[in-house]
Amino acid sequence: MFTKIHPTKRKILDKALELFNENGLANVTLRQIALELEISQGNLNYHFKKKEELIEFLYFELFQQGEENEREIRNFTIWDFLQSYIAGMEQLYTYRFLLLDMEQVFREVPSLRDHFISISKFRDEAYTKAYLLGAACGVFKPLKKEELKIWVETIRLLGDSWITHAHRYGITEKAAVFENHLGYFEHWLRNYYMETTKAELNKR
Amino acid sequence: MFTKIHPTKRKILDKALELFNENGLANVTLRQIALELEISQGNLNYHFKKKEELIEFLYFELFQQGEENEREIRNFTIWDFLQSYIAGMEQLYTYRFLLLDMEQVFREVPSLRDHFISISKFRDEAYTKAYLLGAACGVFKPLKKEELKIWVETIRLLGDSWITHAHRYGITEKAAVFENHLGYFEHWLRNYYMETTKAELNKR
Repeated sequence: MFTKIHPTKRKILDKALELFNENGLANVTLRQIALELEISQGNLNYHFKKKEELIEFLYFELFQQGEENEREIRNFTIWDFLQSYIAGMEQLYTYRFLLLDMEQVFREVPSLRDHFISISKFRDEAYTKAYLLGAACGVFKPLKKEELKIWVETIRLLGDSWITHAHRYGITEKAAVFENHLGYFEHWLRNYYMETTKAELNKR
Repeated sequence: MFTKIHPTKRKILDKALELFNENGLANVTLRQIALELEISQGNLNYHFKKKEELIEFLYFELFQQGEENEREIRNFTIWDFLQSYIAGMEQLYTYRFLLLDMEQVFREVPSLRDHFISISKFRDEAYTKAYLLGAACGVFKPLKKEELKIWVETIRLLGDSWITHAHRYGITEKAAVFENHLGYFEHWLRNYYMETTKAELNKR
């Protein structure tokens, strides 16, 4: 995907991402992005006419990566699961303004909220499938339907809010943000492990 | 508290709150607030020189209400606990821009992040105390220290993110936002009830 993008377009996207992440979506203008890159406003506008287009491109870029990531969860072990979760965290962190300023993202490009809602069903299905596969492979305890629903809702809530949660408590350095969430996440997930899974984890 | 505030100042605060909640913090100016209230910019500036002062006032107003609310949790029953939680939800919902745009709030008034971090310790202590009181009164199951820590972290995460979570999935009508969270919250909390608490809840 990346190789097909015009180098200037890529440079604009990377700078926009950097500034959105650092300064907040509402506080960054196209003018600033052009100035920082030392390119003309016209050159920038040739690639992106409006800020909305930039936000939209970055939003769908993150989601495409998420889809590529999903396909990998197959032969289910707890290591695969945790590794795939951490890979997802890496991707989200790169595009973190989308989570930190999600309300503003949806205010500036309202159609993205519709997309986000429409895919939440598929996200829940993917989480449900992962849990059931993990249970079939003896990694997770079996859960009643209602409990599985809560598990799915919780993992979605945690997956959506970990960066915001760390940031609001002053944790902003990447390694610390990851450590903060993973400590909490693994402790929560442990409630769903089979005893054999716990033993497997303790071995390493 | 409210009675001591000059009526014009109160009108400005209420209009600001309304516009921040509706349009997002970054998209509201002092000029707009004055226009909407049909008062002069000078009159508004007499009460609030900068937008930061307005945000700060509303932030501490919410927190003062939170403190008043906390004092009420004493004779512990599950009804008191749920009612006090719902009372807290009502207050947060009134000031919801503070949660929806929290990153932007902290960008516009950085000192508020320091306050938020400094009081998070007291919030955790209050949640811990509430759980232990509930356990002593036979409402909650006893928990190990580590489990109690996770419970506290979870209730803080849920309490901080329920409005944002509902909004991002297109649930914005007040009753629906409450219903969405309470359904999830009560289901989650049920994991910690003693059997007698479940029986008590089923009776009503």
